[in-house]
Formats: sequence, C-alpha cells, structure tokens
Amino acid sequence: MSAEIICIGTELLLGDILNTNCQYLAQELAGLGIPHYYQSVVGDNLQRIHQVIEVAASRAEILIFTGGLGPTPDDLTTEAIASFFKTPLEEKPEIIAAIKAKYASVGRKMTANNKKQALIPVGANILPNPTGTAPGMIWEISYSGKTLTIMTFPGVPSEMHRMWQDTAVPFLKSQGWGQNIIYSQMLRFRGIGESALATKVDHLFDLSNPTVAPYASKGEVRLRICAKAKSETEAMALIKPIAEEIQNIAGLDYFGKDEETLEAVVGKLLSDRKETVAVAESCTGGGLGSILTAIPGSSKYFLGGIIAYSNQVKMALLSVNESTLNKWGAVSHPVAREMAQGAKQKLNTDWGISITGIAGPDGGTDTKPVGLVYIGLASPDGEVESFECRFGKDRERSLIRYLSSYQALDLLRRKLLTL
Amino acid sequence: MSAEIICIGTELLLGDILNTNCQYLAQELAGLGIPHYYQSVVGDNLQRIHQVIEVAASRAEILIFTGGLGPTPDDLTTEAIASFFKTPLEEKPEIIAAIKAKYASVGRKMTANNKKQALIPVGANILPNPTGTAPGMIWEISYSGKTLTIMTFPGVPSEMHRMWQDTAVPFLKSQGWGQNIIYSQMLRFRGIGESALATKVDHLFDLSNPTVAPYASKGEVRLRICAKAKSETEAMALIKPIAEEIQNIAGLDYFGKDEETLEAVVGKLLSDRKETVAVAESCTGGGLGSILTAIPGSSKYFLGGIIAYSNQVKMALLSVNESTLNKWGAVSHPVAREMAQGAKQKLNTDWGISITGIAGPDGGTDTKPVGLVYIGLASPDGEVESFECRFGKDRERSLIRYLSSYQALDLLRRKLLTL
Repeated sequence: MSAEIICIGTELLLGDILNTNCQYLAQELAGLGIPHYYQSVVGDNLQRIHQVIEVAASRAEILIFTGGLGPTPDDLTTEAIASFFKTPLEEKPEIIAAIKAKYASVGRKMTANNKKQALIPVGANILPNPTGTAPGMIWEISYSGKTLTIMTFPGVPSEMHRMWQDTAVPFLKSQGWGQNIIYSQMLRFRGIGESALATKVDHLFDLSNPTVAPYASKGEVRLRICAKAKSETEAMALIKPIAEEIQNIAGLDYFGKDEETLEAVVGKLLSDRKETVAVAESCTGGGLGSILTAIPGSSKYFLGGIIAYSNQVKMALLSVNESTLNKWGAVSHPVAREMAQGAKQKLNTDWGISITGIAGPDGGTDTKPVGLVYIGLASPDGEVESFECRFGKDRERSLIRYLSSYQALDLLRRKLLTL
Repeated sequence: MSAEIICIGTELLLGDILNTNCQYLAQELAGLGIPHYYQSVVGDNLQRIHQVIEVAASRAEILIFTGGLGPTPDDLTTEAIASFFKTPLEEKPEIIAAIKAKYASVGRKMTANNKKQALIPVGANILPNPTGTAPGMIWEISYSGKTLTIMTFPGVPSEMHRMWQDTAVPFLKSQGWGQNIIYSQMLRFRGIGESALATKVDHLFDLSNPTVAPYASKGEVRLRICAKAKSETEAMALIKPIAEEIQNIAGLDYFGKDEETLEAVVGKLLSDRKETVAVAESCTGGGLGSILTAIPGSSKYFLGGIIAYSNQVKMALLSVNESTLNKWGAVSHPVAREMAQGAKQKLNTDWGISITGIAGPDGGTDTKPVGLVYIGLASPDGEVESFECRFGKDRERSLIRYLSSYQALDLLRRKLLTL
C-alpha cells in the first residue's frame, strides 16, 4: 500500500508558485507512516491529468490531489477524475447551501460559476472546506482489482491544511494508518549558529533511534530528534533523555520545542509573572507588536506601543530628547534606551522594548551601515539597557526587520529567565 | 517537443526540503519558450527511477534531472539513467582531475567515494559544475524513434542554477530554443471574488494569444495575461490592449500589476500627493504599520502610529472617549472613528487609519463574532468614516489579522483615488 501526491495547476508548470503543498503532504504522510514513492505535477489539461491518473493508479492505492477545484473553466480536477473512472458527476445540494452561506456571511452572493464546485462523482463523499468555497472529496472506488482511495484538496495551502487535519487525517487513521508511528520533536535555539551547536552535540548525530539532525532556519537553529516506535509514549521515552541532554548542553540558547515560538515563550514568561510589556518601534514599524499579538490572549501582557517612525514622533510620543537625537542620531544606544523608557512610561507597563535601526536598502553610512540596529530594554526595577546588533549590510530589508523583532524578543526572554 | 523535470531524492518524499529546483527550472523553461507539461519526484531507488524515466521518455524529448549526483551509495541518478538506456558508464579522467583540483584548492584530498562522480554514460558530455564536486551531463540519445536530450544537475540549488545558466541555457539556445519568448503580466485585484471577476471577463478566457487565466491568492485575485512572441515588445503589444480592457472592466477593484503590492501602490499615491499617514491598531497589533514600512523610503509618508491593544491605551494615547467604549464596545464603528481621528491628531498627519476587531479564536459573541473588524479612516478634509468587515468566524487569527490590514490599505487606496 502506498500513496501518491498529484498537484494540478498550470501555475506550477510556469513556476509562478512554489509547490509547498507537496512538502506539507509529504511530511504528513511520513508522520502517519504511509509509504509514498512518487509525486507528480501536471497542468490544467484534461488529457494530461488522465495520463497522470493512469500512471499513479497503477502503482499506488491512495491518490491525493491538490489544486484545480476552483469555479473557473480551467479548474478541471474533479471532472478529470470522474471521467477517467467513467463515473458521472452529481450536484450536491449541501455544497451549494454551504457556498451560499459562506458568501452570505461576508455579504456577497454566490455566482453561477460556483455551481460547478458542487459537482462530485456519484459515490464520492464531500470533504468539507471550512475556510474557502471549494470542497474536496474522499472517494473509495474499485479499480483494476484493488480499492483506490482518492482525495482532493484545493490548492490554497491554508484551506488544504485545515481540510487535511480536520477530515483526511481522521479518515486515514480509521483505515489503520498512523499506528506504527514516526514521532519527532524539534528543539529550537537562538543566539548560536548551526555549526557551533552541531559541534557541541556532535556525539549524538550517530544515534540510530532516535536520530538527531540539525536544521538551520531563519534566525534560529533547530535539532530534530526523531524516534520510531509503536506508540507515542514509547517514542517519547526514547526522545526525552536525548532532549534533556541537549537542553543542558545548550543552556539559555535553547528556547522552546515544536510549536513553541519565541513569542509564545515570552508571552508565557510574562503571563506567569503577571507583568506587562509595551513596544516602541522605529525600523520595524509595528512588526514586533504584530509578532507579540499573534498569540491569542496576548492582551493579558501586551498593552500596546508606539510606532515612532519619524524623529518627530519619537520626541512627541516617546519623550525622546531632541538633544539625544541630535548628538547620537536616531540609530544609537541612547535613543534606543529613551524609546524603551518612553514606551514603558507612556503605556504604564512593567517592561518597555524598543527597536531603532537601519533596515535599508538605503540610509546606511560607513559608521552606521545598513543592518545596524539598537534594541532598548526597560525593566520593572527601573534599569534600562541597550544592545547593538549588526545583521549585515548585504541582507534584505525584510530579513533585517524580521531578525530585529526576534532579537528584541530573545533579549527580553533571556532577561526574564535570569532576572 | 517538450521538456519534463524529474527531481530525485528521498528527502523530497519525506518533506524534509522544499522543491525550489522545480520552480526555478519551470520558470527558466517558460522563459525559453520550451513547453513543459509534467514534473515528477521520485526517491533514491533504481527501479522507481527507471519507472519515472520510462513514462517521461514516452511523452517528452528533453528530460531534466536534478539530485542524486553525490558521492554516496544512495546517489543513483547517473547509474539509473545509464542502465535504463542500456549504456555502460565510463570514468572521465577530466572529472577526476577537476574534483582533485577543487579539493586541493581548499587544502583537502579527494576521497575514494568521489570517484563515482567521474562516471558518466558512454557518449554523454560533461556538464561542468564550477561550484561543487558533482558534475552533470548533457546526453543526446536515440530512443524509440526520436532523439532524447538528457540533462542532469545536482540537487544543491546554487550549483544547479550556475550550471543551468553557464552550460544548459547556451546549449538549449544553440538548439533553437529561446527564440520565441513567453511573456506575461499579472493583474491584481481586491474587493472582488475570483468567480465574480471571472464572470465579468469571461469572454477573454477563450483567447489563444495572449491567454488570460485567473488565480486566487490570499485576500486578492489575479489575472495572468500570457503572450507568446518573438520579442518582449511584440509580446507587450499583444498584452497591452487586453490589460487595458480588463482594467476598464474592473474599475477600482484593479489595484496594480506584477510586483506592485497594495502597500507600494498606496505609498506611491500618498507620495505623489505629498501627504502623510498614521495608524491606530488594536487587533492587528502593529501589522498595518509593519506592512506600510516594508516599502523602502516609506518614511516620506508614514510617520508612525499607536498600537492600542488595551482600552486603557486607546483612551490615554488616542483620546478615545471612555463613554464611547462603554456604550459601543471597543469593536465598533464609533471607536474605529475615534481611533483614526486620534492617530491623525496625535501624529499630526494628513490621514489616520485605524483597525479594531476580534481576531479570535476567543472573544467572539453572537452579535460580535470572531472576524468582525471595523476600520476607521480620517481624511485630510476632516471627514472621518468607518467600515465594517466580516471575515468569517471560522477563519484563523493570522488570516483575519492579515486581511484586516490589507482591507484598511485598500480602503485608503480607494479613498485616495476618488477624493
């Protein structure tokens, strides 16, 4: 038994979009222990979709399709599957009702071409799409002496992920998949490079179960510990001692595991202490506040902040001194400190964090190059510190802004942990 | 004549890496005008690679392989190709010499397993790898009554790109490709759904050169106009009248083309008018400011803003009236208006935009569900408006926040264009 992934869309053949759906599904199949040997991409063309189905149906038992479920004439996936298996399409009133309700909830009306999305092959089950209009299907059908399971998903990644988790995973588990499991834990680190961390835990890379492997990602380093076992408990028992050993070695550079983002970790530390924070942002323009408020319930510890993009606003709303700006420039230790202090005082919080820097591509000089960023941190006890970061003048504006926000959060995390 | 992309590597099947090579090659093939209808991914397994070659060789004339050229036993691409076409491998002394020289230049020695990388099928030409050890090949071979061209590249994207540009592109051009180019323009729309827009421009979907096709993406809809021609000028002459027709039909729902993001379009409108804007953000927590400042040079028109996540901050820093908050609640038309007005006044700008809403997943009620967002807009002439958006209670927090910020920008854009 194996599964095959088939992604449909001319935009993939033109290279307009990156095929992230394939990677997502591949990881999910691996996690469920479903073997998967081939992936195919084909355009919105009936005959060619038929050809791909013919090849895939001859070698796999589970065919997973993404893309081509939209309302326009070039969306052919459902039609191609039905015609390949010589099965008529039928209109499902419950899909029509669901699409109408979705449009109504946003004050719009369903258009005639949406009707097409209500057609699925006779005998197939609807795979509901809670966040978009195009539903998918789960269809079990006899073909060439075996049972094929066909699943379709829209190409929009967020819709696909939700449908996969809500409906496809429970279905596959009910079929007996996901018993022998591969379970992994991702440990996350900041403030240390991949090679430096790898050197420290080098002796663990030869383990066979669990395995340990490093990954570099934007602004952080990760170590994946991966165990094969009959149950999650058994897998966790294999993973736990290794994870603890690594955490001991890494110390403060370790910040969380799996879905524990830095903003969630900082949020929990603040919540636990019943403390609040405010931000003062220049070059990040609100990015730090946006990251902090990505966490549901962040209103418990995040009160708000001031986006002080211009010097005028730094003075008027954060009480940064004109003389400090004139003497040191907006991108400096003293201004970062006055901004952090200003945020803390104006918003009456326990903590204030500030960011001021040169995100580029213009505005850099020899002494203050693009990528130079100062972070200010005002603590509950009245202490105000500042930190200099140099993210490199050749880095992109978006990356410099991203790294600045996370560096500020990481400095707050370290302070909270060592206070 | 068409090409097919075959990516080889078990790491792709496990979802460990994203297949960026496929997108790169797809874009390159489109640029050269080489038709390309299928992409395949297969693991490091001889038999399965054979199966993929068999299918691909039956439908295409140019087979482009990436991955599996390394020195370890699981790297099977060259061996699989040679054995499929029943051709022996031969060791190329010039490859051995090149690998030795590369190692010597970094003070290392070639290892025994590198020898494997010097084997290519008899009759194939070396495709040099200036930045890594694994060379590829270009091999023209008769198969089943036609001439097949086989090209292999390593999986490391930077090496593959360099080899593609240095050797493969000149080779393909020498074969007559790249004379006819495919040129496309992407038109971008907001405030209209994919199906509604498709209905309006339905008559254009049957064109053959240029073609018109719709794409839905997060919060916006796109129409791609794609022309085949001998030159960019000729292609643009085909595209221009269609683009103009579509823009006329779409009116204000059209906001830009290609790389013209909404934040860039709004920034340009403000710059042209020499006007400034400030933000007041509740549920987006700084996201709107972050989007506005993603544009280099945004300091010309963006002065800053106030992140008023708590009601206390709405009152203290934006002068929202306590009575308004008590009477209408923080998520309401009147509060959105007072916030926009507050931002404009406190930061002394021409425009003020505000966002207040329920991003979820908690905090929704029957009358004020998750996804309910109010946007306030204070204009230079003193007018203050507010708009209600319902993004749907089942949508994710991150999406509601994203859509809120872009909806606010779009309302500002429409106001700037109709003032």
